[in-house]
Amino acid sequence: MPGTLAGKAPETPPRITLMAFTRETLEEREFATVDETLSAIPATGVTWINVDGLLAPAELARLGARYNLHALALEDVLNIPQRPKVERYDTYYFVVIRTMRTDRDPTHFVFQDEQVSLFFGKDWVITLQERADGDCFGTVRDAIRQRRGRVRDAGADYLAYLLLDSVIDAYFPVIETMSERMQALEARAIEETSQDILLDIQDLRHQLLALRRAVWPMREEILILQRDESPLLTPETRMFLRDVYDHAVQALEIVESLRETVVSVMEIHLSVQNQKLNEVMKVLTVIATLFIPLTTIASIYGMNFQHMPELHWRYGYAWALGLMAVTAGAMLAYFRRRGWW
Amino acid sequence: MPGTLAGKAPETPPRITLMAFTRETLEEREFATVDETLSAIPATGVTWINVDGLLAPAELARLGARYNLHALALEDVLNIPQRPKVERYDTYYFVVIRTMRTDRDPTHFVFQDEQVSLFFGKDWVITLQERADGDCFGTVRDAIRQRRGRVRDAGADYLAYLLLDSVIDAYFPVIETMSERMQALEARAIEETSQDILLDIQDLRHQLLALRRAVWPMREEILILQRDESPLLTPETRMFLRDVYDHAVQALEIVESLRETVVSVMEIHLSVQNQKLNEVMKVLTVIATLFIPLTTIASIYGMNFQHMPELHWRYGYAWALGLMAVTAGAMLAYFRRRGWW
Amino acid sequence: MPGTLAGKAPETPPRITLMAFTRETLEEREFATVDETLSAIPATGVTWINVDGLLAPAELARLGARYNLHALALEDVLNIPQRPKVERYDTYYFVVIRTMRTDRDPTHFVFQDEQVSLFFGKDWVITLQERADGDCFGTVRDAIRQRRGRVRDAGADYLAYLLLDSVIDAYFPVIETMSERMQALEARAIEETSQDILLDIQDLRHQLLALRRAVWPMREEILILQRDESPLLTPETRMFLRDVYDHAVQALEIVESLRETVVSVMEIHLSVQNQKLNEVMKVLTVIATLFIPLTTIASIYGMNFQHMPELHWRYGYAWALGLMAVTAGAMLAYFRRRGWW
Amino acid sequence: MPGTLAGKAPETPPRITLMAFTRETLEEREFATVDETLSAIPATGVTWINVDGLLAPAELARLGARYNLHALALEDVLNIPQRPKVERYDTYYFVVIRTMRTDRDPTHFVFQDEQVSLFFGKDWVITLQERADGDCFGTVRDAIRQRRGRVRDAGADYLAYLLLDSVIDAYFPVIETMSERMQALEARAIEETSQDILLDIQDLRHQLLALRRAVWPMREEILILQRDESPLLTPETRMFLRDVYDHAVQALEIVESLRETVVSVMEIHLSVQNQKLNEVMKVLTVIATLFIPLTTIASIYGMNFQHMPELHWRYGYAWALGLMAVTAGAMLAYFRRRGWW
Amino acid sequence: MPGTLAGKAPETPPRITLMAFTRETLEEREFATVDETLSAIPATGVTWINVDGLLAPAELARLGARYNLHALALEDVLNIPQRPKVERYDTYYFVVIRTMRTDRDPTHFVFQDEQVSLFFGKDWVITLQERADGDCFGTVRDAIRQRRGRVRDAGADYLAYLLLDSVIDAYFPVIETMSERMQALEARAIEETSQDILLDIQDLRHQLLALRRAVWPMREEILILQRDESPLLTPETRMFLRDVYDHAVQALEIVESLRETVVSVMEIHLSVQNQKLNEVMKVLTVIATLFIPLTTIASIYGMNFQHMPELHWRYGYAWALGLMAVTAGAMLAYFRRRGWW
Repeated sequence: MPGTLAGKAPETPPRITLMAFTRETLEEREFATVDETLSAIPATGVTWINVDGLLAPAELARLGARYNLHALALEDVLNIPQRPKVERYDTYYFVVIRTMRTDRDPTHFVFQDEQVSLFFGKDWVITLQERADGDCFGTVRDAIRQRRGRVRDAGADYLAYLLLDSVIDAYFPVIETMSERMQALEARAIEETSQDILLDIQDLRHQLLALRRAVWPMREEILILQRDESPLLTPETRMFLRDVYDHAVQALEIVESLRETVVSVMEIHLSVQNQKLNEVMKVLTVIATLFIPLTTIASIYGMNFQHMPELHWRYGYAWALGLMAVTAGAMLAYFRRRGWW
Repeated sequence: MPGTLAGKAPETPPRITLMAFTRETLEEREFATVDETLSAIPATGVTWINVDGLLAPAELARLGARYNLHALALEDVLNIPQRPKVERYDTYYFVVIRTMRTDRDPTHFVFQDEQVSLFFGKDWVITLQERADGDCFGTVRDAIRQRRGRVRDAGADYLAYLLLDSVIDAYFPVIETMSERMQALEARAIEETSQDILLDIQDLRHQLLALRRAVWPMREEILILQRDESPLLTPETRMFLRDVYDHAVQALEIVESLRETVVSVMEIHLSVQNQKLNEVMKVLTVIATLFIPLTTIASIYGMNFQHMPELHWRYGYAWALGLMAVTAGAMLAYFRRRGWW
Repeated sequence: MPGTLAGKAPETPPRITLMAFTRETLEEREFATVDETLSAIPATGVTWINVDGLLAPAELARLGARYNLHALALEDVLNIPQRPKVERYDTYYFVVIRTMRTDRDPTHFVFQDEQVSLFFGKDWVITLQERADGDCFGTVRDAIRQRRGRVRDAGADYLAYLLLDSVIDAYFPVIETMSERMQALEARAIEETSQDILLDIQDLRHQLLALRRAVWPMREEILILQRDESPLLTPETRMFLRDVYDHAVQALEIVESLRETVVSVMEIHLSVQNQKLNEVMKVLTVIATLFIPLTTIASIYGMNFQHMPELHWRYGYAWALGLMAVTAGAMLAYFRRRGWW
Repeated sequence: MPGTLAGKAPETPPRITLMAFTRETLEEREFATVDETLSAIPATGVTWINVDGLLAPAELARLGARYNLHALALEDVLNIPQRPKVERYDTYYFVVIRTMRTDRDPTHFVFQDEQVSLFFGKDWVITLQERADGDCFGTVRDAIRQRRGRVRDAGADYLAYLLLDSVIDAYFPVIETMSERMQALEARAIEETSQDILLDIQDLRHQLLALRRAVWPMREEILILQRDESPLLTPETRMFLRDVYDHAVQALEIVESLRETVVSVMEIHLSVQNQKLNEVMKVLTVIATLFIPLTTIASIYGMNFQHMPELHWRYGYAWALGLMAVTAGAMLAYFRRRGWW
Repeated sequence: MPGTLAGKAPETPPRITLMAFTRETLEEREFATVDETLSAIPATGVTWINVDGLLAPAELARLGARYNLHALALEDVLNIPQRPKVERYDTYYFVVIRTMRTDRDPTHFVFQDEQVSLFFGKDWVITLQERADGDCFGTVRDAIRQRRGRVRDAGADYLAYLLLDSVIDAYFPVIETMSERMQALEARAIEETSQDILLDIQDLRHQLLALRRAVWPMREEILILQRDESPLLTPETRMFLRDVYDHAVQALEIVESLRETVVSVMEIHLSVQNQKLNEVMKVLTVIATLFIPLTTIASIYGMNFQHMPELHWRYGYAWALGLMAVTAGAMLAYFRRRGWW
């Protein structure tokens, strides 16, 4: 039923980390349950609760109760995959993000995507990650710890912006890996004839389609955030979001270029195959049309008729060989004229 | 004529079920005629009249008279198929929905679509189904019976939302079955050469086109419902409709991806066929160009000229065999250099 | 010159019919000239003047003078073909419609299109048809005569709506015929190899393009009529136009589906041809590579060298036949391994 | 530098014609210089200055000074080609038009395009044509001379409209010629195999692309003129522009149809080539597979082994011929079963 | 971190040039550091600071401090490549441009693109170029030096416009080179069969895609500049920007045409290959089907049966030759009928 939290408890309990900071202070701790985390939140400053791995429905409900999160939003946290989207509620924003990572393993390309649910209010940010095996928020954590940039001076909206920014930035290595794969495919499309290349082209197509379906709504949601007139977002953060938007558009443009290129790689592969067939056929034609008439001539003089004058000529053999040479020469001249030789 | 109800009475009389509920009470009964049903409606609470199978024009007119349904809307209930659409009248909404079901029979894929006409007003919902053999509203009925979720607390608009939600959710198994079929086609496109695969690709294309034509206007109509400023829809229900809208967009995106993939499966099939032709031609060329010259040589020494010096040589036979071996070797070397061997 | 009526008088004089009706009375007459018609118009009620076949410029000018029709609109009545469009003037609307008919002749599919110019004001409708050989307004005439529906109660705008509705409805049989043709083409694309099918595919493409060019602007013009805030159109008629709009969109969607399908039929035809070529080449390869080496062996033992030891062997003949059998067997084994046999 | 008039003086001096008219009077003269022309302009009525061929920069500057034409607009008159556009200045409009003409030479199709710069103010129109060898304004000149239509009664805006109308009307013969060429190509695509047809298809594609690039912005600029709320354009002229707009849309639709058709002609050509290859291959396969086994049999009985029992049979020859007949018959039966014969 | 300037100091120090001018005075100098440059700026007139090559982050920060440039904008100057964009700040505009140049080397076509960051305020323009090896601003410099046009009279916005104009104008030679390359490819697509042409087509596609991705956002950004209601831009400059916009659209249209053409060149290449294969196969078929039956006949009369009546006929040899001639003649007649000869 819509609006009710369901789902089984995850096998490994998720890891909950809390970063609470003001301009001067920073508290960074790890907890096992939501209740412990909530009770450790300081009175002032910005709070960032990050959950690695799926939270049990009951735990999630407890978190939602604390921050008045809507039942539908909480449901979307558990019902994976959701389409990336941004939803504005009275006191907070709910943003569904799709992050992508790739192990740059040259032999076998795999890329993993993960849903991250991000809530942010006046002075708090909550991120809920689908997977527990790492994320792309490392630079943000370092910036908070090392007091780099303006994150310790700004509010929760700036932190949310930083997280979005690192998600978009994390797309570029994935896109670059795909771009390299594409270049390898372009080279192989001309040399290879096995069916592996077709499978690889099809595989790359699937991945580009998946990438596009992830980036396209991200671009949209940043635009909505940037344009929405909510007091939750300062004008300064809006200006920074303009920057993220540019990056998202850039990512999208490269993906579209790659999608166009993969189609033309397919066409080139087909064309190269045609060219090779052409060459093979030409060789067959030249050899066959050269020797078949000679065989016919030789067969004629191999007939056993009693009365065949040529057989008794003194230079009959030379005559036959000459006839063959003339035929072959004429054929070769014809081939040369057509440019096949 | 527009605005007049026509059509013959259906062969099997439709089944009319009434669910009338308040927060505390629930009445669920089945009737044979519209009049019986209408007389059984309680004074308070939400009423849901569901008709399985086509209603006779006269019966439908009686139902329309009770709820002031417009002649054009009633006409659309009978004139099947209609394009999915939503129309706002003064005291009610008229929504045409297209539901889809599939028997997940692995050997033969069939999917059935059905038109459902949905009317809803302040405290009543009417659903009229084209077919009598089952629907996708089971979870909604259970929720009402078991008082799950908020349906018993909310109004007719929330019930209408729940019905729309279960229709959209019912698309996903259909899409998944198509996705599985697509994966099977991708494997077959590389291995099979029979014409069956072409027929199956074409069939899948038709189904994806039909699915798209069903989902696309559904997305649109939910958007209209969500944005329309009518007192019939509470702000809370509007928020839930936003969720259904996301699902519809997600369904549409997957369908579009599948449509793109089916085109590339076709291309891959063509390319694989070309590759196979290439291989066949290469074998023919190698064999033919290897043996045709040898036959020519043998034929020459099979000629019956009186004066052929080689025939009388002591090692003439060895000479001929050697000549053939050298020719074959040269050919093979040439093939190897071109990479055909 | 724009705004001047030109054109030669038509060969056969057009047939002018007048239907003038109120709720109680109906007058239906036929005239030879515009003047006669105009003088026969009663003082009250709705007047429908229908002209089958092109009117002479002078006659048309007389009609225009009576109803204050703009020179440019009158010009468009004669300058055929015009693009379907709707133009609003102060006291009337001018609508250009394109109707389509098909003789459902199974062997040779022809569809005829015709331009109908429709003017309607407060209490009059004028329709001017390009061709005199029938139209799709029969049901409207019957509805007026038999007082079916609300046409006798409503104004000229409702009559105009009914005419538009019957034009859109008349597209569906045409589309259905094309759909049947498409299905026949899909079957033939797999079986036939002659060039006729290409001509038929190309022909269907042309017709679908023509159909789309007719329906697309029709959809647009109904939308304009429906949205235009003119006192000439009652709210009730506007609601009915919403229905016509739905039908037009539905027609357009089917046409677009057919256009997509015709492209894939072409692709399938090409793919089937490739498959057939593949099969032919395989048979050639198997036969040729099986027998050419055998011929070479036989030719070798047909050479006339004096010293050929095998010729004198007791089992030389059996040896040669055995050699051939082994060669053929090896070839067949190779073919079977590649899956060609 | 932008805004400065450059360019060399044209080789042949352009021809300047002046038509100045009121309802009653008409003055039509030809001049060699701008100054002479300007001094001949009467005090009242509408003035149309037409320049055939490029004006020298100095001359153009003199014309511009008289009518306060902006430097950028004058620059666009000389910098050919400009994209068709309309620019509104305070006291005049500047319209860049692209006209097209074709010599309907059946063997070699050439179409020439020309830039016409049109300025019009309250009571004057200036047209500057790129080429001096004729234009499409003949009917407009005749209408002025013969006082046909309303041109002598209306203002400069109506004259400008008439000129635009004749430009759009002049596209239709060009489009028709292309349409005829297309029909010829469709026929040739099925019959011809030479490379000429590919060159012709490519050529037509280029021309359609050029035509589209000319008509598309024309449509746009008429729309701008029609919608612009400037006192320079009377409501009556705006209504006439609506008519020109319809023609431009119609032209564009036909061009788009032709562009779609040219793609399908290419596909059909490819498909026909494939069919022909198929036929050729079938004949080769039938002949080769019929006769190669026969040659093998004959070669076997041509071997010179001492011990070959069949050679001494009484009906050995008949046996061999019978064996051949049976083989050939089996082959033919196989071909017939596969439908190749 | 966003908003912090990073990057290593460039290897070769960039060249900073200052042009400061009023209507009467012009100062043009070159500096090594930003501080020297800033201290040399005169109190009045327009200042243009141009930096060839990447500036060190510290130097850039100093420049930014002087003109209050936003941290994000400065970051974009160093983070290359950025997507072309225009951003409006309170006291200045920030424009990212992509310029293109090509060495018109006929054998090997290379085009280089470079990012130029342009800031302009009330009386100052700053351009920061990625590369130090030349730019497309030569004509602007000359105009300032020679007091050509209105640049010395107008403000910083006009100078910015001039720079944008020269960037757009610099695209046309690049596009023209591509157009020439395309024409060469069109010719080669019909004659060549090597794989080089496929690589060249693919290469041109990549370049057109890159060009499109550069020009498309340029067009957009000029539109934004032109429409933005900022006091930094005078109405006169806006009018000039309209001109640049037209050029950008024109460039884009040609690029799109080229992109369409490159697809059809590919198709033509494939079609020509098919035609050539057809011809080759025809020759093979004609020769093989002509001579294979002859060989069969000759082989039959080369059999060694004791009892072969024809061998002893007086005109047996002539009979065999005649049989061959008749067979060959029949074949040739068949070929001629099918149009293969």
